[in-house]
Amino acid sequence: MLSKNRIKQISSLQQKKFRQETSTFVVEGHKSVMELLRSNVKVVEIVATADWIVQYAKHFRGVAVSEGSGADLERISSMKAACDVVAVVEMRDTEPLTLDKSRLYLALDSIRDPGNFGTILRIANWFGIGTVLASEDCVDLYNPKVVQASMGSVFRVDVHYCDLAAALTDAQKLGMPVYGTFLDGENIYTADIGCGGVVVLGNEGHGILPETERCITRRLLIPSGSSPDTSPESLNVAAATAVVCSEFYRRRF
Amino acid sequence: MLSKNRIKQISSLQQKKFRQETSTFVVEGHKSVMELLRSNVKVVEIVATADWIVQYAKHFRGVAVSEGSGADLERISSMKAACDVVAVVEMRDTEPLTLDKSRLYLALDSIRDPGNFGTILRIANWFGIGTVLASEDCVDLYNPKVVQASMGSVFRVDVHYCDLAAALTDAQKLGMPVYGTFLDGENIYTADIGCGGVVVLGNEGHGILPETERCITRRLLIPSGSSPDTSPESLNVAAATAVVCSEFYRRRF
Repeated sequence: MLSKNRIKQISSLQQKKFRQETSTFVVEGHKSVMELLRSNVKVVEIVATADWIVQYAKHFRGVAVSEGSGADLERISSMKAACDVVAVVEMRDTEPLTLDKSRLYLALDSIRDPGNFGTILRIANWFGIGTVLASEDCVDLYNPKVVQASMGSVFRVDVHYCDLAAALTDAQKLGMPVYGTFLDGENIYTADIGCGGVVVLGNEGHGILPETERCITRRLLIPSGSSPDTSPESLNVAAATAVVCSEFYRRRF
Repeated sequence: MLSKNRIKQISSLQQKKFRQETSTFVVEGHKSVMELLRSNVKVVEIVATADWIVQYAKHFRGVAVSEGSGADLERISSMKAACDVVAVVEMRDTEPLTLDKSRLYLALDSIRDPGNFGTILRIANWFGIGTVLASEDCVDLYNPKVVQASMGSVFRVDVHYCDLAAALTDAQKLGMPVYGTFLDGENIYTADIGCGGVVVLGNEGHGILPETERCITRRLLIPSGSSPDTSPESLNVAAATAVVCSEFYRRRF
């Protein structure tokens, strides 16, 4: 059984401050918890309903499993719909960032929406991008909504929070192109782009910020098929990420 | 000033039932309301803070504008963060659906998440797709979160709720290819695809449903750049939509 105190501790992990203090975060819901199995993340504890434990706990050998009532799980979870299981897991240590000229990286500039951030990690993971840079003011990687939207990619993609302008300047010094999408850029479909470089993705409301824009060396455009008066102003940042990652990946075929 | 009764009426439009009864829906927030200006949607009423009215109401000539307090707007709005303005607008009449062999359509199969649905409309609009089919069990087009995520595209893309299997059978009879993405499909990057056809996009949890899958004539694959044991199971449906729409559009260049 779960003590009241433990419930309070786990639900406090919805806040970044407590996640940082304990170097742990919470993974919620069956799908995401099962993704844990496929990762090398260290699971501290699983809290689940009796039914879930009977069916699935055997997959997590050696992990402490506590039974919680539906009400306990509701208190722990950040999600609106109650879930059957949450896991408390240890944050991974990330290796110091070393840029490799031949590889593609994403650089997230002030991405605030956890759903977007998580979806971008899932897209990066899908297209084989293993490392993502993020400005310090991006949403926290271990925010429960980021974890959920990433569908397990949070366990598989290395995210480096850093001074983005400094990191992009380093990339430039290595001779890596630094890409961004703009309305006055070169058509991405016909642009001559290689395999390596950094793709900068901008804030939901303001796009790429001026101090970051100064580091862009290749301006690309995702052309719109609608006339200017009937087209949306832009694509959502996750949708733009999907198009750009797809364009880089496609050139391998 | 807004009467209590009117506040209650407007906030009731968060529910589909009342939207259908009145054939009106609510558009929330400055950005979406300004998108209204670019559309031919009929605005019934604007409710805004005194500041917003001073700055922007002149753009909506001939529209009834009511001043509301922050607390009034909070009561009306479905969003967590209070907004400065909401508009009550009339639903558009949609022309009966007539498929044109030379054009590309999206068909949404049981898309339940309003954020996904709205984002998909924004993507369709970006890539010049003017008509989207939706199964009857998709989320309602006029759900406030759909409207918000679409960033105005809800005013510019025609959405037809219909019996999807029947509509896809009609498309087949016209000789139109019916596309879907599957893990055993043909590489979309190298597939010979034309301009016209219908692209089916599947439910968030279950993908394309069996009765819809029977109507698919061309199975496509968005290849993953990660090995099977480190790749996410799938892309999010909006990300997949972005990649597929981009792939069709790219072939024009």
